[in-house]
Amino acid sequence: MQRYFVNADPSAEITLPSEAAHHLLKVMRAGIGTKVELVLADHCVYLATVSVTEPAAKLKIIQKLLSNSELPVSVTLACGIPKTKEKPELIVQKSTELGADKIVFFEAARSISHWQGSKQKRKIERLQKIAESAAEQSHRNKIPLVEYCKSLDALISDYPATKRVVAWEESAKQGETSALAHQFNGLQAGDSMLAVFGPEGGLTETEITKMNNAGIEAVGLGPRILRTETAPLYFMAAISYAMELS
Amino acid sequence: MQRYFVNADPSAEITLPSEAAHHLLKVMRAGIGTKVELVLADHCVYLATVSVTEPAAKLKIIQKLLSNSELPVSVTLACGIPKTKEKPELIVQKSTELGADKIVFFEAARSISHWQGSKQKRKIERLQKIAESAAEQSHRNKIPLVEYCKSLDALISDYPATKRVVAWEESAKQGETSALAHQFNGLQAGDSMLAVFGPEGGLTETEITKMNNAGIEAVGLGPRILRTETAPLYFMAAISYAMELS
Repeated sequence: MQRYFVNADPSAEITLPSEAAHHLLKVMRAGIGTKVELVLADHCVYLATVSVTEPAAKLKIIQKLLSNSELPVSVTLACGIPKTKEKPELIVQKSTELGADKIVFFEAARSISHWQGSKQKRKIERLQKIAESAAEQSHRNKIPLVEYCKSLDALISDYPATKRVVAWEESAKQGETSALAHQFNGLQAGDSMLAVFGPEGGLTETEITKMNNAGIEAVGLGPRILRTETAPLYFMAAISYAMELS
Repeated sequence: MQRYFVNADPSAEITLPSEAAHHLLKVMRAGIGTKVELVLADHCVYLATVSVTEPAAKLKIIQKLLSNSELPVSVTLACGIPKTKEKPELIVQKSTELGADKIVFFEAARSISHWQGSKQKRKIERLQKIAESAAEQSHRNKIPLVEYCKSLDALISDYPATKRVVAWEESAKQGETSALAHQFNGLQAGDSMLAVFGPEGGLTETEITKMNNAGIEAVGLGPRILRTETAPLYFMAAISYAMELS
């Protein structure tokens, strides 16, 4: 069943925003009586039916559904801004499907692209739309927030979490194979986690040292070298497996 | 360091194939004395140095390296042929990085695209090249094989493995959260695993029943609905985490 996010109170009359209404009525060819799932401002899922189509799509709530597809831990991914346009889009789409709560792109020492001024606003708006559409498709209860962060210093000070880690290739090369599991084993439902990833070319020794000094622990993601857009997806799948399936 | 696969014996004189030579000498601007890593026919990694550049690139082996980045379990992914051109490419590139040993695309009941005749050969050749390049970049010891399979029946009979599973959304919807971990816990180094994934629209009840009857167990990949190209990547990251990091 189609799912839409509507920032409305469950007791209010629900009007579908124009883009979602276009999708439902034109793309999906729905009409009066079609059932959909709505995620309202309370992050709960409701079964609803189309009651009016013109001039706006209005929906009537039938019942609240006991549906929760959120990870038990709130995960923020912080990725050094990658070089290409496609990689941030892939990271946002896939990590939304995989349950991320927030995705931050920060200016890392080896970031070749820089998102400043109007470019930054446009990028974040476009990525936020990708997150919304992926959240609908993957039946999330929440749309992850996409944010920009101007420096590693700002990232360290503005994103506290129960546990904070940084994916570091050298950690894996040194044969370290238990730090990630150790961090996951220490998590409880309701905790939060920040995971930091480098851009192409990786993080510098200075950045790693700065993070270690701030209590962000280096963890390996296995013996293979993962591309900059693959590492966050590995992390999301691993935390889902560790917290939801094992 | 740059890594190339060369199908040669370590005792032989090593000539780099022309595409790899072009990459090394023109793209990477290497010259005589440049060090590279070679994976030879024995799947072992060797440190080598460029000894001749014209008319062909020849390499001299310096030493064998104790480098093994392969998963302890040989994983075959079998994916129902997806609709678009991009999805198989993403699956092959990312699952190579994540350690897959073989990637099979099979004609599933809901496959909209069909790979037949010359199209099939072209597709597989292109995907095999993507696997080779991703294997070099991710420092694998093996290039995964990409194969085409004409039906689910052929898949069931031609791809035996120590354990065989199929990712099934309904399994997750029914609240099943332990089947995947149960399968992983039963694996030992040297075992093999086949994991089957549906195309867009999923597998049919008939296909699931047929697989269950053949001993292929349905497993859930968590509470969120994953796209057809995301599910195999989730599986690869989960098996790496389970077998290599925890």
